[in-house]
Amino acid sequence: MKKLRMGMIGGGIGAFIGDAHRRASRICNDFELVGGVFDADYEKSKEFAKKEGISPDRCYKTVDEFINAETKMAADKRIEVVAIVTPNALHYPFAKSLLMNGFHLVCEKPMTMTVDEALELEKLVAKHKLTFALTHTYTGYPMVRQMRDIIASGALGTIQRIDAQYYQGWINSIIHGTDSRITGVWRLDPKHAGASSCMGDIGVHAFNLIEYTTGLEVKEVLSDLSSVTEDIKLDLDGTVLLRFGKLLKGVIRASQVCGGEENGITIAVYGSKASLKWGQENPNYLYMLSDTEPTKTFKPAHGYNGKNAEAGHTMPAGHPEGIYEALANIYKGTAKSIRGEEFDPCEFPTVHDGVRGMKFIHAVVDSNKAGNTWMKV
Amino acid sequence: MKKLRMGMIGGGIGAFIGDAHRRASRICNDFELVGGVFDADYEKSKEFAKKEGISPDRCYKTVDEFINAETKMAADKRIEVVAIVTPNALHYPFAKSLLMNGFHLVCEKPMTMTVDEALELEKLVAKHKLTFALTHTYTGYPMVRQMRDIIASGALGTIQRIDAQYYQGWINSIIHGTDSRITGVWRLDPKHAGASSCMGDIGVHAFNLIEYTTGLEVKEVLSDLSSVTEDIKLDLDGTVLLRFGKLLKGVIRASQVCGGEENGITIAVYGSKASLKWGQENPNYLYMLSDTEPTKTFKPAHGYNGKNAEAGHTMPAGHPEGIYEALANIYKGTAKSIRGEEFDPCEFPTVHDGVRGMKFIHAVVDSNKAGNTWMKV
Amino acid sequence: MKKLRMGMIGGGIGAFIGDAHRRASRICNDFELVGGVFDADYEKSKEFAKKEGISPDRCYKTVDEFINAETKMAADKRIEVVAIVTPNALHYPFAKSLLMNGFHLVCEKPMTMTVDEALELEKLVAKHKLTFALTHTYTGYPMVRQMRDIIASGALGTIQRIDAQYYQGWINSIIHGTDSRITGVWRLDPKHAGASSCMGDIGVHAFNLIEYTTGLEVKEVLSDLSSVTEDIKLDLDGTVLLRFGKLLKGVIRASQVCGGEENGITIAVYGSKASLKWGQENPNYLYMLSDTEPTKTFKPAHGYNGKNAEAGHTMPAGHPEGIYEALANIYKGTAKSIRGEEFDPCEFPTVHDGVRGMKFIHAVVDSNKAGNTWMKV
Amino acid sequence: MKKLRMGMIGGGIGAFIGDAHRRASRICNDFELVGGVFDADYEKSKEFAKKEGISPDRCYKTVDEFINAETKMAADKRIEVVAIVTPNALHYPFAKSLLMNGFHLVCEKPMTMTVDEALELEKLVAKHKLTFALTHTYTGYPMVRQMRDIIASGALGTIQRIDAQYYQGWINSIIHGTDSRITGVWRLDPKHAGASSCMGDIGVHAFNLIEYTTGLEVKEVLSDLSSVTEDIKLDLDGTVLLRFGKLLKGVIRASQVCGGEENGITIAVYGSKASLKWGQENPNYLYMLSDTEPTKTFKPAHGYNGKNAEAGHTMPAGHPEGIYEALANIYKGTAKSIRGEEFDPCEFPTVHDGVRGMKFIHAVVDSNKAGNTWMKV
Repeated sequence: MKKLRMGMIGGGIGAFIGDAHRRASRICNDFELVGGVFDADYEKSKEFAKKEGISPDRCYKTVDEFINAETKMAADKRIEVVAIVTPNALHYPFAKSLLMNGFHLVCEKPMTMTVDEALELEKLVAKHKLTFALTHTYTGYPMVRQMRDIIASGALGTIQRIDAQYYQGWINSIIHGTDSRITGVWRLDPKHAGASSCMGDIGVHAFNLIEYTTGLEVKEVLSDLSSVTEDIKLDLDGTVLLRFGKLLKGVIRASQVCGGEENGITIAVYGSKASLKWGQENPNYLYMLSDTEPTKTFKPAHGYNGKNAEAGHTMPAGHPEGIYEALANIYKGTAKSIRGEEFDPCEFPTVHDGVRGMKFIHAVVDSNKAGNTWMKV
Repeated sequence: MKKLRMGMIGGGIGAFIGDAHRRASRICNDFELVGGVFDADYEKSKEFAKKEGISPDRCYKTVDEFINAETKMAADKRIEVVAIVTPNALHYPFAKSLLMNGFHLVCEKPMTMTVDEALELEKLVAKHKLTFALTHTYTGYPMVRQMRDIIASGALGTIQRIDAQYYQGWINSIIHGTDSRITGVWRLDPKHAGASSCMGDIGVHAFNLIEYTTGLEVKEVLSDLSSVTEDIKLDLDGTVLLRFGKLLKGVIRASQVCGGEENGITIAVYGSKASLKWGQENPNYLYMLSDTEPTKTFKPAHGYNGKNAEAGHTMPAGHPEGIYEALANIYKGTAKSIRGEEFDPCEFPTVHDGVRGMKFIHAVVDSNKAGNTWMKV
Repeated sequence: MKKLRMGMIGGGIGAFIGDAHRRASRICNDFELVGGVFDADYEKSKEFAKKEGISPDRCYKTVDEFINAETKMAADKRIEVVAIVTPNALHYPFAKSLLMNGFHLVCEKPMTMTVDEALELEKLVAKHKLTFALTHTYTGYPMVRQMRDIIASGALGTIQRIDAQYYQGWINSIIHGTDSRITGVWRLDPKHAGASSCMGDIGVHAFNLIEYTTGLEVKEVLSDLSSVTEDIKLDLDGTVLLRFGKLLKGVIRASQVCGGEENGITIAVYGSKASLKWGQENPNYLYMLSDTEPTKTFKPAHGYNGKNAEAGHTMPAGHPEGIYEALANIYKGTAKSIRGEEFDPCEFPTVHDGVRGMKFIHAVVDSNKAGNTWMKV
Repeated sequence: MKKLRMGMIGGGIGAFIGDAHRRASRICNDFELVGGVFDADYEKSKEFAKKEGISPDRCYKTVDEFINAETKMAADKRIEVVAIVTPNALHYPFAKSLLMNGFHLVCEKPMTMTVDEALELEKLVAKHKLTFALTHTYTGYPMVRQMRDIIASGALGTIQRIDAQYYQGWINSIIHGTDSRITGVWRLDPKHAGASSCMGDIGVHAFNLIEYTTGLEVKEVLSDLSSVTEDIKLDLDGTVLLRFGKLLKGVIRASQVCGGEENGITIAVYGSKASLKWGQENPNYLYMLSDTEPTKTFKPAHGYNGKNAEAGHTMPAGHPEGIYEALANIYKGTAKSIRGEEFDPCEFPTVHDGVRGMKFIHAVVDSNKAGNTWMKV
């Protein structure tokens, strides 16, 4: 099948999230990155394009130039979809221009800086009939989709409480001065990050996960935010009370100063008949609790899951999807060896490992045949 | 950087392991699949090549034809490396021919059917100075590499016991007749699977993991294998006693009939000073036990790990590598939408989710500013 | 050592918490139950006394009668300490009378119905120089004491966030009518339970656990409570925002309608240098998180713990304290057998199990001596 | 109900297992310790008796003297049951004498030194119609009994593999000389420990657990034992292959040198339809695995368990039995306070904690009533 021609705004050398988008697009195998504006610094942008094998004439100086050039190309050459992976404040202006010129978009969150900007983008998407994907990545996990399906089926009865958490600790090393390497400090500057650090960056993921899995809308919030130290202007931590309707309440807890927490996004939905719990750090485990039955653990790649969960997991049961990256690591070491680059012996198993393996298998079979006696390997 | 031109033998439509190799090669981004013999059935092979966007003239009927045609190509066109992902019995003849004709290889395990074949491949690799990678995929996990590094550092003291397990349950549904869909039944036929089913397919992974992490060689084995039912000829289950030297002993337990076990490969190495435990189903957790200190849990993406572990993990701490697949799922849904294909609303978050998110963030910030009062979302 | 003579108010036949107090007092072996008012119904009280082997003349009709009789006894006969295990509303009047008459007290929580009552008891305790223990049982766990010690040592740096949870689901079966057996319904009646159900019964445990482990005082709260259904008068669920000082905030989440949750009390204290997490359902695991070091798991019965933790754990490492109950179950079965009562063969291992064990040990030793050959058991 | 009069042989000051027996007997509340031979050293024995509140004239010098004196007492005074908690080598002679004189016995394992001794005790028990309980304590756990019931029900289908483990690390500190405090060194001396250290002390528990839960008999064993260092005479480590019948095999792995392992006894029974896994360190979790359904976690105190499991758990769901010890710790601190002994403020919650709790509850209720505003505590 023909791959979709993709452009990218941002995501040049050293950008973590741009690399994630490229890897994901290669994994799903429906996209081909062919151009973009990878860095505000044009020289760095070109350097990136070269490294990535992208044609230099599709490495543009600005988004305007990108739009100008690409819209003039023949329909079967033109970039069809653009991934926006810039700092928060640039999402809106770039998204607007690109939508108005007919590009489908994949956009990092938070989508914009203000609600009005967000509403405007929504109108543009509708008007131009374009696809706009916002990367609330956690909704791509198979067991999150299974959770949504189970809740939609009514199996939980009346929902009685919703509790979501998103705890990280990485800002500790910045605000306490032990780590100046981390590049994320634009997140603490209202000009680049918007109205909020913690809630805008991660709280909103927890919010999205609640609405995604339950199909409910949060009606009202009451929040208590904290900037933890006196000199920081944005929230680094907070608790948000939620109201969904007359009786249903919930809570979101989010923090960037929970030292030692890594990426602790969890959700629990409690119903009158059963409850569901999921956590991102072990994403293949979905727990269904009940007062009257043993706790059930749902895992991917089983006939008992719905089709949306199953479509999202391509490995057999018990193989976390990260096994592709393990295999990719071995491919990476192999590539180094073929190219004559330096590599560590640990990076891929060689033919000698194969010899050892065959000796093992045959010694094992022989020992068994000989009535369980010792055999040399 | 120029990608390595890769060919593939086997791995056509419906082949699970071939797809895994292709995904991994795309993730690491050093390889480009340009040709191969994807299926013994030429029509199916061509169908696969078309689907994958591979040029029809590099979809070959046989491995001989593949070698013939590719070796005649110019050096900058010729396939440099070949992935062999056929059933076990074909690994050896194909690997031999390909090595003799100068192709680097990535080969599935078990490498061959006999020890002599394995030794022959080892000689060929040395003679032709080629790269040969055997995909003991589990050695690609960051925390397995960390385990190797810690053991190499001597931190465990004298190793006193080694215990590895590989328990699966999938053959249950075949031998008890409840599932005829599973395609793996060639594994029960000695002609295709070789001398062993359980030990050849999975026991050997446990064996490799022991030698990889400890740097030790298994000297002798005593095994007790079981075919579980009377009519099966190969082992589906077994225990193997291990001797490493005068005092050090260990055990490998492997089974394909442990109903409900998914892919339970684990390893524990016990030393006089400390011990290490790792399990594949939660691959980001490496446990270091000690009699005198709290148990330590090592996780990827931290400064305390060695460089081999860190090079193998590209996400920040707390993001299991499978998150790339979650993001890929969202890209997949987006591609469907752009192409006008049918998709489920759960498959990607839209601009409307972005609007909801912005409303949430601003309501939260406003509630806090207003002295913790309720705000509409 | 002479045991302390204990009385009990409440806790007769069928009372769960009274039985817990008696078991605990027998385990620690410093108390002997010699009298009390075990039930408002005198006949039931006497029946209980008889069953328990308590002298009938120390089974009193009322607390007044109890006080009257006991205070007249000789100092070396008189009950010294009284455990109050009645419904909430009776704690205060009984505690007051008993304190005024010189009895030490062990009292179930919540201590009283109002703050004024609580302050009055505090004054009485001071005035009469008596010991008053309130059974916030969770503070008796070794790893909770270790948590307190670690925090007191300053190892966490500045505390930045505190998060405690107490989720149960048992009221579900009552409010949704699927279970009428459960006796706790007095908890839903303000007359007996006081101002609150969920917060008074379990939220207060979470509150106590925070103050106990951190040594901090909660200064202000903002709560959002829910009665879940329209006809219930008390809270069954709620979230409480906490303020400890200028910068430190926290949250308590408590609920009795989280279906499937059993007794999910957890606490997390996040500091600038390290963090601690503990959960009651696996009470022997205390997790210390850090941004720069592997997560450490503290367990009881190790030299690395402080003396308060170690004093509270009497088993070697790896033996959960519940193993005493496992052994008690075997003693119970043995008692049935000695008394000629009916028992299930599963209730205790017999001499035949001993024979099997000896055969096993000797067959194992013989097999090894004979060079690893099969031996009959 | 009248308590059974119990004697004890061994278990004096400093003896861990004797204390465990006494606690267990107090918890189940069916026994009263009234005499014994607590130490080979009569002075120490008397010191223990005094401390325990046991009448000095029932603290005997020898077992013979014990038997002599007790058998002469009136039937309603005489000790009925004796707990033998001496080193291994003394179990047999004492058990024999006591059985021949009509005492019921609770005996520590391993029951004897030889198979012949074991068979002789079995005959004596039958002849004298006495109760003999061997303390394979792990069979007292509720979820072990549930496992036995589930297997007996046939729910697993045909059993296909059995795997039990018992890993400890405590001997490390002895054989490597880092700890000379540990008193268990008699376990390394064949004269006191018998034919085996590791298998006799802990392997036999794993063996018993297999036969207890499955109802199957081990027919044959093949073992490979290790003494780890050259100067130790007994096994400290080993693997035992098991045969149950024509097709069913299994394995026991046991070790005392798995550094950092605490008391890692686990069992897994794999069947054609489902499988069960249990581990002692988290004894309230019994996992049922299946190829076709989500993993089920059974926990105590639920209607879905059988009566044997339920009879053995006296707390509500989610309360590990160890909570009694937590409460006992609070009682212990209270006793210290009442007696005027020194105690740490962490040892029991006082009336001040009660005041804090009442303030919290009322501030929470008031905040909610006032429309979710801040209230002072």
